[in-house]
Amino acid sequence: MDDTNYHSAIKAPVLLPLNKGLGDVQQPLPTAAVKDLRWNLLREDVSLPAAVLYEERLQHNLEWMQQFVSEYGVKLAPHGKTTMAPALFARQIAGGAWGITLATAHQSRVAYVHGVRRVIMANQLIGKQNMAIVSDLLTDPAFEYYCLVDSAQGVDLLGAFFKERHQTLHVLLELGVDGGRTGVRNAAQQSAVLNAIAEWKGHIVLAGIELYEGVLKEEAEIRAFLQRAVTCTKGLADAGQFAERAALRPVILTGAGSAWYDVVAEEFSRADIGLPLDVILRPGCYLTHDVGVYRASQEQIQTRNPVAQKMRSSLLPALQLWAYVQSVPEPGKAIIALGKRDAAFDAGLPQPAKQYRPGTQAPLATPTHWQLTGMMDQHAYMHIAEGDDIKVGDMIAFDISHPCLTFDKWRQIAVVNPAFEVIDVVHTFF
Amino acid sequence: MDDTNYHSAIKAPVLLPLNKGLGDVQQPLPTAAVKDLRWNLLREDVSLPAAVLYEERLQHNLEWMQQFVSEYGVKLAPHGKTTMAPALFARQIAGGAWGITLATAHQSRVAYVHGVRRVIMANQLIGKQNMAIVSDLLTDPAFEYYCLVDSAQGVDLLGAFFKERHQTLHVLLELGVDGGRTGVRNAAQQSAVLNAIAEWKGHIVLAGIELYEGVLKEEAEIRAFLQRAVTCTKGLADAGQFAERAALRPVILTGAGSAWYDVVAEEFSRADIGLPLDVILRPGCYLTHDVGVYRASQEQIQTRNPVAQKMRSSLLPALQLWAYVQSVPEPGKAIIALGKRDAAFDAGLPQPAKQYRPGTQAPLATPTHWQLTGMMDQHAYMHIAEGDDIKVGDMIAFDISHPCLTFDKWRQIAVVNPAFEVIDVVHTFF
Repeated sequence: MDDTNYHSAIKAPVLLPLNKGLGDVQQPLPTAAVKDLRWNLLREDVSLPAAVLYEERLQHNLEWMQQFVSEYGVKLAPHGKTTMAPALFARQIAGGAWGITLATAHQSRVAYVHGVRRVIMANQLIGKQNMAIVSDLLTDPAFEYYCLVDSAQGVDLLGAFFKERHQTLHVLLELGVDGGRTGVRNAAQQSAVLNAIAEWKGHIVLAGIELYEGVLKEEAEIRAFLQRAVTCTKGLADAGQFAERAALRPVILTGAGSAWYDVVAEEFSRADIGLPLDVILRPGCYLTHDVGVYRASQEQIQTRNPVAQKMRSSLLPALQLWAYVQSVPEPGKAIIALGKRDAAFDAGLPQPAKQYRPGTQAPLATPTHWQLTGMMDQHAYMHIAEGDDIKVGDMIAFDISHPCLTFDKWRQIAVVNPAFEVIDVVHTFF
Repeated sequence: MDDTNYHSAIKAPVLLPLNKGLGDVQQPLPTAAVKDLRWNLLREDVSLPAAVLYEERLQHNLEWMQQFVSEYGVKLAPHGKTTMAPALFARQIAGGAWGITLATAHQSRVAYVHGVRRVIMANQLIGKQNMAIVSDLLTDPAFEYYCLVDSAQGVDLLGAFFKERHQTLHVLLELGVDGGRTGVRNAAQQSAVLNAIAEWKGHIVLAGIELYEGVLKEEAEIRAFLQRAVTCTKGLADAGQFAERAALRPVILTGAGSAWYDVVAEEFSRADIGLPLDVILRPGCYLTHDVGVYRASQEQIQTRNPVAQKMRSSLLPALQLWAYVQSVPEPGKAIIALGKRDAAFDAGLPQPAKQYRPGTQAPLATPTHWQLTGMMDQHAYMHIAEGDDIKVGDMIAFDISHPCLTFDKWRQIAVVNPAFEVIDVVHTFF
């Protein structure tokens, strides 16, 4: 690929006046210039609704997870689809991550263009243009890329494409479970995939084994699935299926979403396949965490996992949405200028956390009975009680549940320090 | 505002290599150049998943709605928040629309920068930075802007801000209903707002009345709400409350989402307040329509409305999502590379419509038993039957429900002709 051209498209990322959730930008400015603008959230310098990242909490979470995986001697390829913010990918890699996980060819390209040189695309690579994107990236010999295969048909489509381009694609066999998502369910499907790979020798190389345990809900069945993966990897190693791979680099064994990464670390870190092995975990939501689905799963991890307990701290919610009270039309109801356009709503609605009245000293915790009862595209309904001290123009900070579907609502996200000064802006690429 | 600087930010909108759902773009290109690239969807020139607009259907819908409102002698300010695509705003205005409706200060700025000179912001304007955005736009005397007020407190915040800037803000009194969203519920709230407006004479001008009937579900209560609005407008006219406005331009009476615009047209077009009156309807979803919530409401309109019946055609779904079958891991299940990142899922999941196998003649209608049963961030589960002819690599076109929450997943959207050639790309600004 013509690296220069790609880079010209994103070189010097700028603050754009036409993105929501920013302060006054009269012309495109280098992102780094945002500090000089001295926007302060509490001084109402930012147009709300706005998504806000808390720098100290981000950094805490980043270090927490890196330490966690290090304790197990395993590696981290955080799922980048959560944020799709290359500036955060860069921090994850600088913090010790082995690579970045992504879900599509498009996302893989975004990561590559921003300097990521090791990508697990934890998904099947399907379609001519998607394969062309990856093929382009692979012209850079420094780029290490893996995608999943779970059908002979998929392997054949890949083999034909990459053979024609005289290239080699490194793939991971995806294991799946009945009732689950992708992945081979049984020995027959697995053999069909392996036979197909053998047919494209030189163009498709089996680099390891992948699974996503998050389709299951119970610890026992998850452990059984993980053990199946270890056994499978060992079996394939014994059968010489990784010969081509092992001559180049360690075999890969990878799993873990954001809810069961501790169990995956426990099971996979014990694996001994008789060949050099890289165990790679792929949580994504840890970086911002939340107060919904992922807080609930993290609480389980803190309860069951000795390493997490030993660390004496846990993940912190690092992403909030700030919005105005726009109307208090009935005694028990406030209308907030925040909608489905601004926040995830599929795993619990945003939760009121702080109230700030412009001109006052500091944000206060909101009463626990303030709760969102519904959201429309651009509005939220908040339950309040008669007589509560709430006014049109008050600012409310909301914690979120499900960071992924919140990030994709924002193109540029303000990063603030504890004084609510905007010290950076993070760009997303969806 | 410094018009030149804003324009420099968006002048010559370009195809960017880092947006999903496009074909091969090796460097930023002027949007108009897309035709020369000769991408064809069926030739797999576009990276899927992709959102696709059908040019002929868009044009049909655009003309249909303009004709409908013309039959009633009322005006159209389509809700732009649906698409946030200024290229589509321009077509709506060229097609006869009076202005564009928007939901936030940010959206209003996007519209202004792209040439829209008449905006109803069908929402309260709250917050210092949001007011500053609008204040900036109002330095252009050719820009006509209205926002809603429903509380004395809101009016006072606006009055103080715009008085300090020596500017005048034109507002619409929002009427609401008990149990609804924003808007004054009763005479006492209404008087409080009117009294507040009077306090800011010269800086806040009452330009008319606004409501959003879509918070109600039954035709009878909607008609009663609309009649209340007409009575209210007449009462305020009689009381001289529109004196300042009427000296400048017709009073405004505006309502209508995408589900009850026919009833609003019927009720409001009969209004006689003894002053020149602009009745303005604000549907937004008609432009792309859907096969879910809006098809259902449109079917009601075709049943009950004589003008719609006379037109002998209806709205057509003009937006689809195309995605690949990535796995068929079990006899009754296919996994599609399409997720919550790509499509609305809050008002029904996307519906399979067409299947296309690359290399074959033309897309075929999908069997009716193919239905999505669930979606994750980047995947969808599709129910199929054992023995169905479906393969990894097949392309599936999905109809959608709820265009708004689909548009905001895409930054650049391919527009195709009936031969599936990409003839344009539409940019969104969220």
